[in-house]
Amino acid sequence: MRGTMMDYPLTLTTILERAGKFFPDVEIVSRAPDGSISRSNYGAFYRRARNLAAGLQRLGMKPGDRVASMMWNHAAHLETFFAVPCAGGILHTLNIRLQPQEIAAVVNHARDRFLIIDDVLLPLLAQFRDKVDFERVIVVRHTPAPLAPGDLDYEEFARGGGEDFRYPKIDENDGAAMSFTSGTTGAPKGVVYSHRALVLHSFVCALKEICNIGYDDTVLVIVPMFHVNAWGLPFTAAMLGARQVLPGPRYDAVSLLELMTREGVTLAGGVPTIWLAIADELEKNPGKWQFTKPVRAGVGGSAPPMELFRRLDRHGIEVKHLWGMTESSPLGIAGGLKPQIRAWDGQRQLEMRAKQGMPAPFVELRLMRPDGEAPWDGETSGEIEMRGPWVAASYYDDPSQKDRWSPDGWFRTGDVATMDADGYVKIVDRVKDLVKSGGEWISSVELENTLMGHPAVKEACVVGIPHPKWSERPLAAIVLRDGATATGDELRGYLATYFGKWQLPDAFVFLDTIPRTSVGKFKKSALRERYAGWDWTKSARS
Amino acid sequence: MRGTMMDYPLTLTTILERAGKFFPDVEIVSRAPDGSISRSNYGAFYRRARNLAAGLQRLGMKPGDRVASMMWNHAAHLETFFAVPCAGGILHTLNIRLQPQEIAAVVNHARDRFLIIDDVLLPLLAQFRDKVDFERVIVVRHTPAPLAPGDLDYEEFARGGGEDFRYPKIDENDGAAMSFTSGTTGAPKGVVYSHRALVLHSFVCALKEICNIGYDDTVLVIVPMFHVNAWGLPFTAAMLGARQVLPGPRYDAVSLLELMTREGVTLAGGVPTIWLAIADELEKNPGKWQFTKPVRAGVGGSAPPMELFRRLDRHGIEVKHLWGMTESSPLGIAGGLKPQIRAWDGQRQLEMRAKQGMPAPFVELRLMRPDGEAPWDGETSGEIEMRGPWVAASYYDDPSQKDRWSPDGWFRTGDVATMDADGYVKIVDRVKDLVKSGGEWISSVELENTLMGHPAVKEACVVGIPHPKWSERPLAAIVLRDGATATGDELRGYLATYFGKWQLPDAFVFLDTIPRTSVGKFKKSALRERYAGWDWTKSARS
Repeated sequence: MRGTMMDYPLTLTTILERAGKFFPDVEIVSRAPDGSISRSNYGAFYRRARNLAAGLQRLGMKPGDRVASMMWNHAAHLETFFAVPCAGGILHTLNIRLQPQEIAAVVNHARDRFLIIDDVLLPLLAQFRDKVDFERVIVVRHTPAPLAPGDLDYEEFARGGGEDFRYPKIDENDGAAMSFTSGTTGAPKGVVYSHRALVLHSFVCALKEICNIGYDDTVLVIVPMFHVNAWGLPFTAAMLGARQVLPGPRYDAVSLLELMTREGVTLAGGVPTIWLAIADELEKNPGKWQFTKPVRAGVGGSAPPMELFRRLDRHGIEVKHLWGMTESSPLGIAGGLKPQIRAWDGQRQLEMRAKQGMPAPFVELRLMRPDGEAPWDGETSGEIEMRGPWVAASYYDDPSQKDRWSPDGWFRTGDVATMDADGYVKIVDRVKDLVKSGGEWISSVELENTLMGHPAVKEACVVGIPHPKWSERPLAAIVLRDGATATGDELRGYLATYFGKWQLPDAFVFLDTIPRTSVGKFKKSALRERYAGWDWTKSARS
Repeated sequence: MRGTMMDYPLTLTTILERAGKFFPDVEIVSRAPDGSISRSNYGAFYRRARNLAAGLQRLGMKPGDRVASMMWNHAAHLETFFAVPCAGGILHTLNIRLQPQEIAAVVNHARDRFLIIDDVLLPLLAQFRDKVDFERVIVVRHTPAPLAPGDLDYEEFARGGGEDFRYPKIDENDGAAMSFTSGTTGAPKGVVYSHRALVLHSFVCALKEICNIGYDDTVLVIVPMFHVNAWGLPFTAAMLGARQVLPGPRYDAVSLLELMTREGVTLAGGVPTIWLAIADELEKNPGKWQFTKPVRAGVGGSAPPMELFRRLDRHGIEVKHLWGMTESSPLGIAGGLKPQIRAWDGQRQLEMRAKQGMPAPFVELRLMRPDGEAPWDGETSGEIEMRGPWVAASYYDDPSQKDRWSPDGWFRTGDVATMDADGYVKIVDRVKDLVKSGGEWISSVELENTLMGHPAVKEACVVGIPHPKWSERPLAAIVLRDGATATGDELRGYLATYFGKWQLPDAFVFLDTIPRTSVGKFKKSALRERYAGWDWTKSARS
């Protein structure tokens, strides 16, 4: 027997209406590419987003049409986040850190019909515009440069015309937004987020143990808006009337700290490298940066080293560890601590905080090994498989990837983890980044995190390199802190207090920088390639 | 184009699994009818609920079958809350404060097949058992009294048998629970809550501005579990691993304060009369009750008088005002304050807190008048119409009530309210309780709340009584505080500083108690009946 409840869909239109009508005075602070700050609010945002929605429909946008964006984090991108799906379209946020030919490939794969772009990014578009077929390009003009013939001015769309706009009928399972994976594991693969997924994700993101967002928050969206819906923060903040601060293209620590201190930011979400730079800046200039309110640092994208928790704690910034993927909208696991753990001593508690945490409500996880599910013993590792209402069931138009889902429909994340008796997940590696040594698995991530706790080490990246006897052995690429010194033997000795001898890297290389992917993660494939022919006869374990 | 997300249903089984697997050690504190306290946890709860689910299926319970409960708030009722819907059934919580013949009527209307009942309530069942047709009665035994022939022992069900239990396939729109309205407005009408509604309601209930529930909370569920799913608190707490305290049948202030102080309760949900009694007890015995943690008081069911906020504030209890209905699972409006309002001076801020608050995310409201929607001016009142994913679209098997929904599908709540420019709703009356005086409406609720701010007044209830000239005029029924004195003229003078002369009650009666409904609300119909022949010639405005 069915319930007698209303058939009321979970769509982003309800969030747009709520933000505009109940929080019209709540500020949206936006930094332009030239560094200037502009101030708007949800009232203006609401009118402009609806104007843009109406304008897109006048342009001929039909339900399900893809509208691409190439923009930094600012007010116009926020308007676009809501305008496109609320007009029935699908917003395809293009990752502007990909190579031009990669961007062209995903545009063509997604069959993007329109593009909304920052004028400062037009030179990037010029590098692949002949390879794609946008029907219309709408330009957000931050500079006085004239429009190219045929291009349209964003402001003409946002300024008016939506007074009588009416939302089309939208099913909650219709697509609202679209992202492609960053390509660390092969060709980019697309995911289409439904309205339902983004709404449910907003509720989960808001929870006390996750981002804990309410009216009194000011959310700094550091994570680029072209990276998995900016982790859903713009949607969650709008639903709950939280103030938003959008930093434009300025990702250096000083610019971010300026915004955090001046705007009274209470929550900021970004990848560990950003937070490491912020910690460096805070330590370099003691007393310079004064926070008026307690700050929570949402850290995700890759695992933050344990040392980062300690360093930010000292400045009153509480790290909230989040784990997610493009394929899960992105939130899967969050690191809130159970009350009894908060009573543990410093180091033991820190170890729990450095774990990824517990699955979010309605995300189900299991750790799969060749012989079945791993027990919750904190030691046995297995690949995380995941399911839930905001987890992808397939990639967009890519049947070749079917084996990323188990026969019973769970998504295979490619992350290897343990689960302890308290239900806390700890990622130990990517399946592909495990060092397979003599039939045993060595976690490159654990070695890296421990190395990054050494005072001389700024960054560490461990990869498995082919070895004639052991199949693979670990090589550690190290970037030292400015002015610091350390030898491979010293670091090996340091690691030996934490790891078995067979797990220690047999080779150390010292670099100025570690190669990175477009989203700032270590590009391990580049290191594996560079050192593929390593001469192990000179190493500790030959 | 559809999203590529998983088709993962929102059902209570996911909450049950989460509570059992991630929070097995979190305590459930339960008071039996004899006052004794027992301690369990979500681990045991999980096994026992699954055992009961398996047992119900063995008994022949089929998907959609109604299972009634007649129980106080305790661990077995909590197990039943999950076991019945997770086995595919629909839990019909019977309001044991109704008259026996009323209970029999809703049992028959709902076609309840099984009953789970506290042994201490068997005498109540005996009063209507011959009028209903339960196939099986399962008894929760709190006393050593033997089972009646044919009745089953709850413990036999909960103790084992669910080890291999598998959830049936449940659609998120399937019914999970069922309540009837309390009958203040005519015959009880049934609502069937879907799994989807209860899950979404749990997410909303958890929000920072609403109940703000997380791992570190201890939730005292004062509101009876037979009253609209105990406002969803048991589901929300289980989803988030919050500790639960269930007070059994002891609703006196001393028993509740014992639990609150001894168990470190952080959130307690109950009706204003309960909180008024708690405030009385706190004032009577200064220093006796020491709270170890800050306490939030979830207050709903009827509007708390403004004075209650002040009185509880003094003891460090923060009132969270919630408005809801049987027809909305129940949460519709919550009273979180926008940050700018928190900066207002005491009295002005208090007036905002005493309003019902803003609609919860995904609840849509409009205030309808004969001439269309009321503006958000804080003055013009209209009937609240509501829609959302956890709002009823119809009553169960009762097509005669169709006019409770507007032609475009909004639920007509029967509550009359204003909405101010900040989006805060203030209920001014029930449509049927407005005093219709000479073509104007007078709000009985505003008069009552102001009267209850007078130091001599314990309770006040205002009703419209037929009047030869004005159609109706207000009569105020007053219960004075112990030892206090006041005359009608004095109270009239007191009111005159807040209301226009035409709004003042022309008659005052002083009573020992005000008649109440089964859920503790004033029974205005009884007063209207009692004073229907009032002789207005002796009154102030004849």
